[in-house]
Amino acid sequence: MRDTVQKRQYANNHISIDSVVLGFDEQQLKVLLVPQQVNMDGKIIIYRKFPGNIIYQDEDMEEAAHRTLEELTGIHGVSMYQFKTYGSRNRTSKPKDLIWLQQTLNIKVERIVTTAYLSFVKLDANILHSTKRYAVTWVPVNNVGELAFDHNTLLNDALAYFRKLVDYCPLIMFELLPRKFTILQLRTLYEFICQKEMDVRNFQKKMVQMEYVVPMDEHEEGVRHRAARFYKFDKVIYNKTRR
Amino acid sequence: MRDTVQKRQYANNHISIDSVVLGFDEQQLKVLLVPQQVNMDGKIIIYRKFPGNIIYQDEDMEEAAHRTLEELTGIHGVSMYQFKTYGSRNRTSKPKDLIWLQQTLNIKVERIVTTAYLSFVKLDANILHSTKRYAVTWVPVNNVGELAFDHNTLLNDALAYFRKLVDYCPLIMFELLPRKFTILQLRTLYEFICQKEMDVRNFQKKMVQMEYVVPMDEHEEGVRHRAARFYKFDKVIYNKTRR
Repeated sequence: MRDTVQKRQYANNHISIDSVVLGFDEQQLKVLLVPQQVNMDGKIIIYRKFPGNIIYQDEDMEEAAHRTLEELTGIHGVSMYQFKTYGSRNRTSKPKDLIWLQQTLNIKVERIVTTAYLSFVKLDANILHSTKRYAVTWVPVNNVGELAFDHNTLLNDALAYFRKLVDYCPLIMFELLPRKFTILQLRTLYEFICQKEMDVRNFQKKMVQMEYVVPMDEHEEGVRHRAARFYKFDKVIYNKTRR
Repeated sequence: MRDTVQKRQYANNHISIDSVVLGFDEQQLKVLLVPQQVNMDGKIIIYRKFPGNIIYQDEDMEEAAHRTLEELTGIHGVSMYQFKTYGSRNRTSKPKDLIWLQQTLNIKVERIVTTAYLSFVKLDANILHSTKRYAVTWVPVNNVGELAFDHNTLLNDALAYFRKLVDYCPLIMFELLPRKFTILQLRTLYEFICQKEMDVRNFQKKMVQMEYVVPMDEHEEGVRHRAARFYKFDKVIYNKTRR
């Protein structure tokens, strides 16, 4: 038994970071993707992937997470929640992924173990300004198509993790919403999280429990429908009401 | 900028698995440790660590998690919850850890990225039988002393993860409790999870909410105090009452 064990080769693999960045554009939850451009027999094929890259030997994983996100998207200074590590030996077995790794990183790869992080941003003018020099796209989470590597699995896991995180820490919702938001915006996000539609009355009941969502003296402007009141998140009340 | 970046060396590291296995001995929450025996200048020093090892090139991480746990402790067939990956470049910098890696695995290691898993077992005759041929010890979680590598951090993170997991899925508590348990046992475990003592009356109120904890027609035997009634966990009721 011991002999057999010693003959097997220990894994010695590249380690990468992938970042799932979620943003809410007031109507839909979206995820940030970057292009994976592959030259296959002279034909350029473009898939999409999460921003991420292999970490360097002289950097910690958390450092690499922030570095790769900024290098590929311009986004910096966000909280990054590590949610899962993927190490299947087959995760880099698709031909186009292998070609992309060789063409882009100039390395021959057996397996890459990747650690995935989740971040939240407000999809506002600031973030669009930060990212405008980069080849990024914001795609509705329900409509990403086929992603590179095992990134479709990563996205599903990220969304499941997001739902649990909000359940435990509702504060996360307000990292996605604009500073001033309408009840409709809050409800839209909430429905996505709960994976069910809520009628206005049921959502009003839910709102009563969220004492930290407080009305402002401002209303929407320049809208065709009746202007909705704006609400804001009150962190002081939130901290008092949470155990 | 690009030139500087390309000169840095990509990490190519061993990947390991570490397992934090929690057990409840009816009075205390305990964690399973294995010895880390090091020969330092002819003197044998023994530290403790979590059961774990480097994964092989031809196995998936989940496979490696189950394999290493069984090889080192005899425990098999348990659920393993992946909770965090540790990749600090300094995590294998303590001299005794480096010596142990060389003496035990015969490898020179720069950094090992480790993925940590959490499991729960009933500390009963079965588990003691499974582990009796192995050099394992069950140590109260509050009293583990200095562990190898960054394993004290792993333990703290594992306990924080355990508390969140129970909050989300109370079922986990009953993976730790014996099949028949007393209210005192349930309260002891519950107090550990909530990190606060509860008086009997307050805990009774809490119990009313746990409809899935049902009284049995059996009582403790051969005890000096008044024999307490046994309770059991009813999974059918649990599944009905959970959303």
